[in-house]
Amino acid sequence: MVSRLSRIYWPVSVVPKDAVVKNQDITSRSQKLLLELGLIKSAGNGTFCILPIAERAMSNCAKLVDKHMQSVGAQKIVLPSLTSSHLWEKSGRLKDCCGELLITKDHQGKEHVLGPTHEEAITSLVAQSSPISYKQLPLKLYQIGLKFRDELKPRFGLIRTKEFLMKDLYSFDVGLDEAKVTYDEIDSAYKALFTELGIPWKKVRASTGMMGGHLSNEYHIPSHIGEDTIIFCEKCDFASNCEEYDDLKQCPVCVNSDLRKEKSIEIAHTFLLGHKYSKALGATFLQSNGKPKNIFMGCYGIGISRLIGATLEALSTENALRWPLALAPYKICVIPAKSGSKEEAKSDVWVEKLCAELCRMFDSDQILLDDRNNLTIGKRLMENKRMGYPVIIVAGSKILESDAKFEMHLQLENSSQELIFTDLINEIGKYFHSKQTEEEFHEKV
Amino acid sequence: MVSRLSRIYWPVSVVPKDAVVKNQDITSRSQKLLLELGLIKSAGNGTFCILPIAERAMSNCAKLVDKHMQSVGAQKIVLPSLTSSHLWEKSGRLKDCCGELLITKDHQGKEHVLGPTHEEAITSLVAQSSPISYKQLPLKLYQIGLKFRDELKPRFGLIRTKEFLMKDLYSFDVGLDEAKVTYDEIDSAYKALFTELGIPWKKVRASTGMMGGHLSNEYHIPSHIGEDTIIFCEKCDFASNCEEYDDLKQCPVCVNSDLRKEKSIEIAHTFLLGHKYSKALGATFLQSNGKPKNIFMGCYGIGISRLIGATLEALSTENALRWPLALAPYKICVIPAKSGSKEEAKSDVWVEKLCAELCRMFDSDQILLDDRNNLTIGKRLMENKRMGYPVIIVAGSKILESDAKFEMHLQLENSSQELIFTDLINEIGKYFHSKQTEEEFHEKV
Repeated sequence: MVSRLSRIYWPVSVVPKDAVVKNQDITSRSQKLLLELGLIKSAGNGTFCILPIAERAMSNCAKLVDKHMQSVGAQKIVLPSLTSSHLWEKSGRLKDCCGELLITKDHQGKEHVLGPTHEEAITSLVAQSSPISYKQLPLKLYQIGLKFRDELKPRFGLIRTKEFLMKDLYSFDVGLDEAKVTYDEIDSAYKALFTELGIPWKKVRASTGMMGGHLSNEYHIPSHIGEDTIIFCEKCDFASNCEEYDDLKQCPVCVNSDLRKEKSIEIAHTFLLGHKYSKALGATFLQSNGKPKNIFMGCYGIGISRLIGATLEALSTENALRWPLALAPYKICVIPAKSGSKEEAKSDVWVEKLCAELCRMFDSDQILLDDRNNLTIGKRLMENKRMGYPVIIVAGSKILESDAKFEMHLQLENSSQELIFTDLINEIGKYFHSKQTEEEFHEKV
Repeated sequence: MVSRLSRIYWPVSVVPKDAVVKNQDITSRSQKLLLELGLIKSAGNGTFCILPIAERAMSNCAKLVDKHMQSVGAQKIVLPSLTSSHLWEKSGRLKDCCGELLITKDHQGKEHVLGPTHEEAITSLVAQSSPISYKQLPLKLYQIGLKFRDELKPRFGLIRTKEFLMKDLYSFDVGLDEAKVTYDEIDSAYKALFTELGIPWKKVRASTGMMGGHLSNEYHIPSHIGEDTIIFCEKCDFASNCEEYDDLKQCPVCVNSDLRKEKSIEIAHTFLLGHKYSKALGATFLQSNGKPKNIFMGCYGIGISRLIGATLEALSTENALRWPLALAPYKICVIPAKSGSKEEAKSDVWVEKLCAELCRMFDSDQILLDDRNNLTIGKRLMENKRMGYPVIIVAGSKILESDAKFEMHLQLENSSQELIFTDLINEIGKYFHSKQTEEEFHEKV
């Protein structure tokens, strides 16, 4: 069934035109638009409620991440948020991460860390059934769940929050060489995912920091609100987080001096962890010679809610959201004529026909009908453009012409056309088909 | 692509036959089987890791709940787990729930309650955009997310834990009469859901307890491990939680004395809350006369992880899990001949043909191939029966007969048959079709 906009909980914040808005907390474009358009609401300092339309984008994003993780044979699990502080003592991170850990105590006086990441929890899980057979390796386990961090300064809406949705994958291998193969495989899945989203991303070298380990990369979206700075070579594909290189004058790869710096948002990171956690917590495997050995680990994170914030930050205009097709809460929004207008009757007939045809072409759940027929087409078109639905179709005054015409707006292309019904259907088909083909193309690269 | 059992992380606990198992913590059948079969692992007192096969059941359960909630027009959202303790002060529940709340403090000294339920959070959300128009009512918002409770005594595996997955729906109505209509609608969705699961459930009257409000019902699965006792009339459909009626001698509906008591597990509850939270937190709507009024609320919960535990508790045998079709991690499990056996070559050919045909009939993701061909068919059949896959198909020695035969085991029916290929495919088709028809039938009732 097609969704009807009038039934959706979507509490737009009406800001009077002459109001002096003095909201110092709103620090980014995506945050401003998501709040004003009633897609998220602040629930506290660094926590948000995700409302129905944004929830659909979040769920689309999680499904997309599932698809790409499963493409490399990763298996989904659920680890608890409450992790015993003893595990964090064993790994030595109870002190290291002290500033950002949220901790709760139960009635027995036991302390639980609200997981900001789950190396301790997953390693302890695998340790429970250790030694596992070398035949079970490589093992890739992941979850999509909440993470908690006591951020000093939450900001930029979904980009830096106290509580957020994250995909974290952990890999287990026989040794360094095998772990590198796994690392590259997951890197390919990340590239395919970000390419499918159609966002401008860069992979950079990064510091291993408090995770420890051998090697780390981050994936960034350039943005002036970014809290990181990346440095990259204009001539080769060297790129690094500036933390890594303090005062670089030359490209360490091609030794030229055409280096550029750019502010950016980290959306994902990968680490070759080595034996740090498996040693501390006793995760081992039986080698083919029958002797046990510590497992070589890696970890791979993508902030799901942050990825949505960063994607909107990168694609949106100052005044309007832009959703990539893969995340769009609805792919197509249809606007019929205003009630009481002279085109109403004819528009209703055509819109019914159109919706029936769209439901044959797509999952009907992807189609949104803006049935707020008491509003003018102009007002509704403006609002839906701000909401960023990729395809908007209007059945307005041109529907009265002898060759009844629809307006089709392609928002990511910033284009619009007037089309008769059969052409409209053809063009929509071609548009989504070409997007899919692009994806398939990128996936093959 | 068909899933291969050899690739799945499934750390079965091998208990030596002569071992004296002294595990006082294992207190229920579902817990024992889930742990022994490597579907969950304990992560602490009352917290569990959900491993890949069980995660599929959890995700199936969440999808099923989504379907039934959306059938009554409920909209999905996400509320944060961290809720300000100020909200709990305002509603008066900071003291009421004191014993079971897990609380954490951030670096600014602010206290956050880890939501055991979200009446405060949702009411505060709606209050932010209050007054909303009466035209927006009834409004039904729900989420599927984590809940935290500092249980005095976590037990029975997934049934009573410190951290669990729950569906909580909140309804907003103009007044009592309208709220009752909503209440009945959601009650119907609950009935359809539990009927689709094929579990023996009972709806009973319940106390409003610390939730407050006008009316409350619970949904129970009878079980000797149940921590509740329900009392019900053998002659009419009166049923109640014993908390409600201390010492009942006669049925309060049909006034006869054929009352029975039974232990049971609560799997869901519903409350007509009234104005308790909307008044305390200022959630209002504009009446058609233009005047604001507090919204009349209801709340409706289903413990998703608990529902899985309780369903397995009700359907499983002492030694083997039984999954209802709607939750089964895989619907069909296929066992080819042992490698090196004289039937191997022929079995492999038939199994390939079978899998191709099953992938045409079902989502290929629903088919599990037990490719651990180094094990005998007998051992694999026994293990897969314990795992409770609804349909198991064996291509064993009978595949060598001139009219090659498969064994088909229907576990919920506790039956098995030998069938040639075309009959096998027909029977499988009929079996799933009849199950669907049952569902559709129940949905219409």
